[in-house]
Amino acid sequence: MNIAIIGATGTIGKAIVSNMENRHTLFKAGKNQGDYQVDITSTDSLNRFFNDIGKVDAIISVAGDLHLGSIEDMSVDDFNVGLQSKLLGQVKVALTGQKYLHEGGSITLTSGIVSEQPIAGGSNPATVNAAIDAFVRGAAVDLPKVRINSVSPNVVIESLPNYGPFFPGFEAVPTKRVALAYQRSAEGPMTGYTFKVW
Amino acid sequence: MNIAIIGATGTIGKAIVSNMENRHTLFKAGKNQGDYQVDITSTDSLNRFFNDIGKVDAIISVAGDLHLGSIEDMSVDDFNVGLQSKLLGQVKVALTGQKYLHEGGSITLTSGIVSEQPIAGGSNPATVNAAIDAFVRGAAVDLPKVRINSVSPNVVIESLPNYGPFFPGFEAVPTKRVALAYQRSAEGPMTGYTFKVW
Repeated sequence: MNIAIIGATGTIGKAIVSNMENRHTLFKAGKNQGDYQVDITSTDSLNRFFNDIGKVDAIISVAGDLHLGSIEDMSVDDFNVGLQSKLLGQVKVALTGQKYLHEGGSITLTSGIVSEQPIAGGSNPATVNAAIDAFVRGAAVDLPKVRINSVSPNVVIESLPNYGPFFPGFEAVPTKRVALAYQRSAEGPMTGYTFKVW
Repeated sequence: MNIAIIGATGTIGKAIVSNMENRHTLFKAGKNQGDYQVDITSTDSLNRFFNDIGKVDAIISVAGDLHLGSIEDMSVDDFNVGLQSKLLGQVKVALTGQKYLHEGGSITLTSGIVSEQPIAGGSNPATVNAAIDAFVRGAAVDLPKVRINSVSPNVVIESLPNYGPFFPGFEAVPTKRVALAYQRSAEGPMTGYTFKVW
Protein backbone atom coordinates (compact mmCIF):
# COMPACT_ATOMS: atom_id res chain seq x y z
CA MET A 1 0.00 0.00 0.00
CA ASN A 2 0.92 3.64 -0.38
CA ILE A 3 0.58 5.21 3.06
CA ALA A 4 0.86 8.86 4.08
CA ILE A 5 2.04 9.32 7.66
CA ILE A 6 1.62 12.82 9.06
CA GLY A 7 3.72 13.07 12.19
CA ALA A 8 6.12 10.36 11.00
CA THR A 9 9.09 11.90 12.79
CA GLY A 10 7.49 12.00 16.25
CA THR A 11 7.86 9.47 19.05
CA ILE A 12 4.94 7.29 17.96
CA GLY A 13 5.36 8.15 14.27
CA LYS A 14 8.82 6.56 14.22
CA ALA A 15 7.41 3.32 15.64
CA ILE A 16 4.70 3.28 12.97
CA VAL A 17 7.38 3.73 10.31
CA SER A 18 9.40 0.83 11.78
CA ASN A 19 6.30 -1.36 11.78
CA MET A 20 5.32 -0.54 8.20
CA GLU A 21 8.38 0.35 6.15
CA ASN A 22 9.13 -3.19 4.98
CA ARG A 23 5.59 -3.84 3.77
CA HIS A 24 4.44 -0.49 2.37
CA THR A 25 5.55 2.61 0.51
CA LEU A 26 5.53 5.38 3.08
CA PHE A 27 5.23 9.13 2.55
CA LYS A 28 6.66 10.53 5.76
CA ALA A 29 5.56 14.03 6.72
CA GLY A 30 6.38 16.15 9.73
CA LYS A 31 5.77 19.73 10.79
CA ASN A 32 9.41 20.72 10.31
CA GLN A 33 11.19 17.41 9.67
CA GLY A 34 10.46 14.37 7.48
CA ASP A 35 10.42 14.07 3.70
CA TYR A 36 7.42 16.40 3.44
CA GLN A 37 6.54 19.40 5.62
CA VAL A 38 2.85 19.60 6.48
CA ASP A 39 0.94 21.95 8.76
CA ILE A 40 -2.27 20.10 9.71
CA THR A 41 -3.97 23.35 10.72
CA SER A 42 -3.75 24.53 7.09
CA THR A 43 -6.00 23.02 4.43
CA ASP A 44 -3.72 24.55 1.77
CA SER A 45 -0.69 22.80 3.25
CA LEU A 46 -2.59 19.49 3.36
CA ASN A 47 -3.77 19.86 -0.23
CA ARG A 48 -0.22 20.59 -1.39
CA PHE A 49 1.06 17.47 0.39
CA PHE A 50 -1.60 15.16 -1.03
CA ASN A 51 -1.19 16.65 -4.51
CA ASP A 52 2.54 16.02 -4.28
CA ILE A 53 2.25 12.36 -3.33
CA GLY A 54 -0.86 11.42 -5.35
CA LYS A 55 -3.64 9.06 -4.26
CA VAL A 56 -2.85 6.74 -1.37
CA ASP A 57 -4.38 3.69 0.30
CA ALA A 58 -4.07 4.92 3.87
CA ILE A 59 -3.60 8.18 5.68
CA ILE A 60 -2.28 8.16 9.23
CA SER A 61 -2.27 11.27 11.40
CA VAL A 62 -0.29 11.20 14.61
CA ALA A 63 0.01 14.94 15.05
CA GLY A 64 -1.40 17.90 16.92
CA ASP A 65 -0.76 20.00 20.02
CA LEU A 66 -2.67 20.15 23.29
CA HIS A 67 -2.76 22.45 26.29
CA LEU A 68 -1.97 21.05 29.73
CA GLY A 69 -3.05 23.15 32.70
CA SER A 70 -5.72 23.54 35.33
CA ILE A 71 -9.06 24.92 34.24
CA GLU A 72 -8.93 27.31 37.20
CA ASP A 73 -6.45 29.59 35.43
CA MET A 74 -6.96 28.55 31.82
CA SER A 75 -7.73 31.15 29.18
CA VAL A 76 -9.96 30.56 26.19
CA ASP A 77 -6.89 30.93 23.99
CA ASP A 78 -5.11 28.20 25.97
CA PHE A 79 -8.06 25.88 25.47
CA ASN A 80 -8.33 26.75 21.81
CA VAL A 81 -4.78 25.41 21.23
CA GLY A 82 -5.97 21.83 21.35
CA LEU A 83 -9.19 22.57 19.50
CA GLN A 84 -7.43 24.16 16.56
CA SER A 85 -4.45 21.80 16.43
CA LYS A 86 -5.05 18.21 17.53
CA LEU A 87 -8.85 18.32 17.01
CA LEU A 88 -9.64 20.60 14.05
CA GLY A 89 -6.21 19.90 12.51
CA GLN A 90 -6.90 16.18 12.39
CA VAL A 91 -10.46 16.81 11.18
CA LYS A 92 -8.88 18.80 8.35
CA VAL A 93 -6.67 15.79 7.59
CA ALA A 94 -9.85 13.72 7.23
CA LEU A 95 -11.92 16.29 5.31
CA THR A 96 -9.05 16.95 2.90
CA GLY A 97 -7.55 13.48 2.81
CA GLN A 98 -10.77 11.64 1.91
CA LYS A 99 -10.48 13.14 -1.60
CA TYR A 100 -7.02 11.62 -2.07
CA LEU A 101 -7.85 8.07 -0.98
CA HIS A 102 -8.34 5.08 -3.23
CA GLU A 103 -11.70 3.35 -2.72
CA GLY A 104 -11.41 1.06 0.28
CA GLY A 105 -8.66 3.22 1.74
CA SER A 106 -8.51 4.32 5.34
CA ILE A 107 -7.91 7.32 7.55
CA THR A 108 -6.47 6.84 11.04
CA LEU A 109 -6.40 9.68 13.55
CA THR A 110 -4.85 9.82 17.02
CA SER A 111 -6.63 10.45 20.33
CA GLY A 112 -5.48 9.28 23.78
CA ILE A 113 -6.40 7.69 27.10
CA VAL A 114 -7.29 11.00 28.77
CA SER A 115 -10.55 10.93 26.79
CA GLU A 116 -11.89 8.56 29.45
CA GLN A 117 -9.38 8.68 32.28
CA PRO A 118 -8.79 12.21 33.59
CA ILE A 119 -5.42 13.56 34.69
CA ALA A 120 -4.71 16.75 36.62
CA GLY A 121 -4.64 19.68 34.21
CA GLY A 122 -6.14 17.48 31.52
CA SER A 123 -9.45 19.09 30.58
CA ASN A 124 -8.12 20.08 27.18
CA PRO A 125 -6.69 16.63 26.25
CA ALA A 126 -9.85 14.99 27.63
CA THR A 127 -12.03 17.13 25.40
CA VAL A 128 -9.91 16.82 22.28
CA ASN A 129 -9.24 13.08 22.54
CA ALA A 130 -12.89 12.18 23.16
CA ALA A 131 -13.86 14.47 20.30
CA ILE A 132 -11.54 12.63 17.90
CA ASP A 133 -12.95 9.22 18.89
CA ALA A 134 -16.51 10.47 18.43
CA PHE A 135 -15.62 12.15 15.16
CA VAL A 136 -14.51 8.84 13.62
CA ARG A 137 -17.69 7.13 14.93
CA GLY A 138 -19.81 9.89 13.44
CA ALA A 139 -17.90 10.23 10.17
CA ALA A 140 -17.74 6.49 9.44
CA VAL A 141 -21.47 6.24 8.79
CA ASP A 142 -21.16 8.96 6.14
CA LEU A 143 -18.17 7.37 4.39
CA PRO A 144 -19.27 4.20 2.58
CA LYS A 145 -16.19 4.03 0.33
CA VAL A 146 -13.37 4.63 2.80
CA ARG A 147 -12.78 3.67 6.42
CA ILE A 148 -11.94 5.96 9.34
CA ASN A 149 -10.67 4.97 12.81
CA SER A 150 -8.70 6.38 15.70
CA VAL A 151 -5.91 5.04 17.86
CA SER A 152 -6.05 5.99 21.54
CA PRO A 153 -2.69 5.35 23.21
CA ASN A 154 -1.87 5.30 26.88
CA VAL A 155 1.19 7.40 27.80
CA VAL A 156 4.10 5.76 25.99
CA ILE A 157 7.24 4.56 27.74
CA GLU A 158 9.43 6.61 25.41
CA SER A 159 7.68 9.83 26.55
CA LEU A 160 7.89 9.19 30.30
CA PRO A 161 10.85 11.57 30.79
CA ASN A 162 8.60 14.41 29.59
CA TYR A 163 5.07 13.29 30.47
CA GLY A 164 5.49 10.72 33.24
CA PRO A 165 4.64 13.16 36.06
CA PHE A 166 1.24 13.83 34.48
CA PHE A 167 0.38 10.10 34.48
CA PRO A 168 1.05 8.72 37.98
CA GLY A 169 0.40 4.98 38.10
CA PHE A 170 -0.65 4.73 34.47
CA GLU A 171 0.68 1.56 32.83
CA ALA A 172 2.86 3.14 30.16
CA VAL A 173 3.01 1.19 26.89
CA PRO A 174 5.87 0.85 24.39
CA THR A 175 5.41 2.65 21.07
CA LYS A 176 5.89 -0.72 19.39
CA ARG A 177 2.51 -1.82 20.82
CA VAL A 178 0.87 1.44 19.78
CA ALA A 179 2.17 0.98 16.24
CA LEU A 180 0.28 -2.34 16.02
CA ALA A 181 -2.99 -0.44 16.45
CA TYR A 182 -2.19 1.77 13.44
CA GLN A 183 -1.36 -1.40 11.51
CA ARG A 184 -4.73 -2.92 12.45
CA SER A 185 -6.53 0.25 11.41
CA ALA A 186 -4.75 0.50 8.03
CA GLU A 187 -4.57 -3.20 7.14
CA GLY A 188 -7.73 -4.52 8.87
CA PRO A 189 -11.46 -4.19 8.10
CA MET A 190 -12.71 -1.92 10.90
CA THR A 191 -14.35 1.48 10.52
CA GLY A 192 -15.72 3.98 13.03
CA TYR A 193 -13.63 2.23 15.65
CA THR A 194 -11.21 3.39 18.34
CA PHE A 195 -8.25 1.10 18.97
CA LYS A 196 -7.41 1.60 22.64
CA VAL A 197 -3.83 0.73 23.57
CA TRP A 198 -4.30 0.68 27.37
CA MET B 1 -30.60 28.82 45.05
CA ASN B 2 -29.79 31.51 42.53
CA ILE B 3 -29.49 29.80 39.16
CA ALA B 4 -28.37 31.25 35.83
CA ILE B 5 -29.91 29.47 32.85
CA ILE B 6 -28.33 30.26 29.49
CA GLY B 7 -30.69 29.07 26.80
CA ALA B 8 -33.73 29.44 29.06
CA THR B 9 -36.04 30.30 26.18
CA GLY B 10 -35.27 27.23 24.08
CA THR B 11 -37.21 23.98 23.90
CA ILE B 12 -35.34 22.27 26.74
CA GLY B 13 -34.64 25.55 28.54
CA LYS B 14 -38.36 26.18 29.03
CA ALA B 15 -38.77 22.75 30.64
CA ILE B 16 -35.87 23.46 33.02
CA VAL B 17 -37.54 26.74 33.98
CA SER B 18 -40.85 24.93 34.63
CA ASN B 19 -39.04 22.39 36.80
CA MET B 20 -37.12 24.96 38.84
CA GLU B 21 -39.05 28.22 38.99
CA ASN B 22 -40.99 27.39 42.16
CA ARG B 23 -37.91 26.37 44.13
CA HIS B 24 -35.19 28.75 42.94
CA THR B 25 -34.49 32.30 41.78
CA LEU B 26 -33.79 32.00 38.07
CA PHE B 27 -31.82 34.36 35.83
CA LYS B 28 -33.11 33.49 32.38
CA ALA B 29 -30.84 34.28 29.46
CA GLY B 30 -31.24 33.71 25.74
CA LYS B 31 -29.37 34.68 22.63
CA ASN B 32 -32.07 37.13 21.53
CA GLN B 33 -34.94 36.50 23.96
CA GLY B 34 -35.15 36.04 27.74
CA ASP B 35 -34.52 38.55 30.54
CA TYR B 36 -30.82 38.73 29.63
CA GLN B 37 -29.20 38.52 26.20
CA VAL B 38 -26.03 36.43 26.19
CA ASP B 39 -23.77 35.31 23.35
CA ILE B 40 -21.90 32.24 24.64
CA THR B 41 -19.22 32.62 21.96
CA SER B 42 -18.21 35.96 23.55
CA THR B 43 -16.33 36.02 26.87
CA ASP B 44 -17.20 39.74 27.15
CA SER B 45 -20.90 39.00 26.80
CA LEU B 46 -20.66 36.26 29.44
CA ASN B 47 -18.74 38.52 31.85
CA ARG B 48 -21.37 41.26 31.43
CA PHE B 49 -24.16 38.78 32.18
CA PHE B 50 -22.52 37.35 35.30
CA ASN B 51 -21.57 40.84 36.52
CA ASP B 52 -25.20 41.93 36.10
CA ILE B 53 -26.68 39.06 38.11
CA GLY B 54 -23.94 38.63 40.75
CA LYS B 55 -22.70 35.36 42.21
CA VAL B 56 -24.94 32.34 41.75
CA ASP B 57 -25.21 28.79 43.07
CA ALA B 58 -25.66 27.08 39.73
CA ILE B 59 -25.04 27.83 36.07
CA ILE B 60 -26.90 25.87 33.44
CA SER B 61 -26.01 26.08 29.76
CA VAL B 62 -28.41 24.62 27.25
CA ALA B 63 -27.16 26.53 24.24
CA GLY B 64 -25.02 26.25 21.14
CA ASP B 65 -25.29 25.52 17.44
CA LEU B 66 -24.18 22.47 15.47
CA HIS B 67 -23.68 21.60 11.82
CA LEU B 68 -25.66 18.72 10.33
CA GLY B 69 -24.37 17.33 7.03
CA SER B 70 -22.35 14.55 5.49
CA ILE B 71 -18.61 14.67 5.90
CA GLU B 72 -18.28 13.96 2.17
CA ASP B 73 -19.14 17.56 1.27
CA MET B 74 -18.43 19.32 4.56
CA SER B 75 -16.13 22.33 4.66
CA VAL B 76 -13.84 23.16 7.53
CA ASP B 77 -15.97 26.24 8.18
CA ASP B 78 -19.09 24.07 8.41
CA PHE B 79 -17.39 21.85 10.96
CA ASN B 80 -16.06 24.82 12.90
CA VAL B 81 -19.66 26.00 13.55
CA GLY B 82 -20.16 23.40 16.24
CA LEU B 83 -16.65 23.72 17.59
CA GLN B 84 -16.95 27.48 18.12
CA SER B 85 -20.56 27.50 19.30
CA LYS B 86 -21.78 24.45 21.22
CA LEU B 87 -18.29 23.27 22.22
CA LEU B 88 -16.03 26.30 22.77
CA GLY B 89 -19.05 28.46 23.65
CA GLN B 90 -20.01 26.16 26.50
CA VAL B 91 -16.36 25.84 27.57
CA LYS B 92 -16.37 29.65 27.77
CA VAL B 93 -19.45 29.45 29.99
CA ALA B 94 -17.46 27.18 32.32
CA LEU B 95 -14.17 29.09 32.20
CA THR B 96 -15.94 32.40 32.81
CA GLY B 97 -18.73 31.16 35.05
CA GLN B 98 -16.49 29.39 37.59
CA LYS B 99 -15.43 32.85 38.84
CA TYR B 100 -19.05 33.80 39.56
CA LEU B 101 -20.04 30.68 41.51
CA HIS B 102 -20.44 30.40 45.26
CA GLU B 103 -18.32 27.62 46.78
CA GLY B 104 -20.15 24.33 46.32
CA GLY B 105 -21.92 25.67 43.25
CA SER B 106 -22.30 23.82 40.00
CA ILE B 107 -21.97 24.19 36.27
CA THR B 108 -24.12 22.05 33.96
CA LEU B 109 -23.45 21.90 30.23
CA THR B 110 -25.43 20.18 27.48
CA SER B 111 -24.26 17.45 25.14
CA GLY B 112 -26.44 14.83 23.38
CA ILE B 113 -26.93 11.19 22.46
CA VAL B 114 -25.06 11.49 19.13
CA SER B 115 -21.81 11.45 21.16
CA GLU B 116 -22.16 7.67 21.31
CA GLN B 117 -24.89 6.79 18.81
CA PRO B 118 -24.14 8.13 15.30
CA ILE B 119 -26.75 9.55 12.96
CA ALA B 120 -26.39 10.27 9.24
CA GLY B 121 -24.75 13.65 8.78
CA GLY B 122 -23.83 13.68 12.45
CA SER B 123 -20.05 13.81 12.59
CA ASN B 124 -20.13 17.37 13.94
CA PRO B 125 -22.68 16.70 16.73
CA ALA B 126 -20.88 13.45 17.58
CA THR B 127 -17.60 15.30 18.00
CA VAL B 128 -19.01 18.24 19.92
CA ASN B 129 -21.24 16.24 22.26
CA ALA B 130 -18.53 13.73 23.19
CA ALA B 131 -16.14 16.63 23.70
CA ILE B 132 -18.50 18.29 26.18
CA ASP B 133 -18.91 15.07 28.19
CA ALA B 134 -15.14 14.57 28.31
CA PHE B 135 -14.57 18.21 29.18
CA VAL B 136 -16.66 17.92 32.34
CA ARG B 137 -14.83 14.69 33.29
CA GLY B 138 -11.50 16.37 32.75
CA ALA B 139 -12.42 19.70 34.36
CA ALA B 140 -14.01 18.19 37.48
CA VAL B 141 -10.69 16.90 38.82
CA ASP B 142 -9.28 20.43 38.63
CA LEU B 143 -12.26 22.06 40.37
CA PRO B 144 -12.31 21.09 44.06
CA LYS B 145 -14.66 23.91 45.10
CA VAL B 146 -17.37 23.70 42.45
CA ARG B 147 -19.00 20.85 40.56
CA ILE B 148 -19.34 20.41 36.79
CA ASN B 149 -21.55 17.96 34.89
CA SER B 150 -23.24 17.54 31.56
CA VAL B 151 -26.71 16.44 30.49
CA SER B 152 -26.89 14.32 27.36
CA PRO B 153 -30.44 14.21 26.02
CA ASN B 154 -31.91 11.92 23.40
CA VAL B 155 -33.88 13.75 20.71
CA VAL B 156 -36.82 15.37 22.53
CA ILE B 157 -40.44 14.78 21.58
CA GLU B 158 -41.06 18.53 21.28
CA SER B 159 -38.35 18.78 18.58
CA LEU B 160 -39.53 15.86 16.45
CA PRO B 161 -41.21 18.11 13.86
CA ASN B 162 -37.78 19.60 13.07
CA TYR B 163 -35.32 16.85 13.95
CA GLY B 164 -37.32 13.61 13.83
CA PRO B 165 -36.08 12.62 10.35
CA PHE B 166 -32.48 12.65 11.61
CA PHE B 167 -33.32 10.21 14.42
CA PRO B 168 -35.16 7.23 12.87
CA GLY B 169 -36.23 4.79 15.58
CA PHE B 170 -34.70 6.76 18.43
CA GLU B 171 -36.91 6.70 21.55
CA ALA B 172 -37.64 10.41 21.80
CA VAL B 173 -37.97 11.71 25.37
CA PRO B 174 -40.17 14.49 26.75
CA THR B 175 -38.34 17.67 27.81
CA LYS B 176 -39.88 17.18 31.26
CA ARG B 177 -37.65 14.11 31.72
CA VAL B 178 -34.61 15.96 30.42
CA ALA B 179 -35.27 18.77 32.93
CA LEU B 180 -34.97 16.26 35.79
CA ALA B 181 -31.36 15.62 34.79
CA TYR B 182 -30.53 19.34 35.10
CA GLN B 183 -32.24 19.29 38.50
CA ARG B 184 -30.09 16.33 39.60
CA SER B 185 -26.96 18.07 38.41
CA ALA B 186 -27.76 21.37 40.18
CA GLU B 187 -29.32 20.00 43.36
CA GLY B 188 -27.45 16.68 43.74
CA PRO B 189 -23.86 15.82 44.74
CA MET B 190 -22.32 14.59 41.48
CA THR B 191 -19.35 16.05 39.64
CA GLY B 192 -17.56 15.10 36.43
CA TYR B 193 -20.67 13.14 35.48
CA THR B 194 -22.83 12.91 32.35
CA PHE B 195 -26.54 12.45 32.99
CA LYS B 196 -27.76 10.49 29.97
CA VAL B 197 -31.48 10.87 29.27
CA TRP B 198 -31.82 7.96 26.84
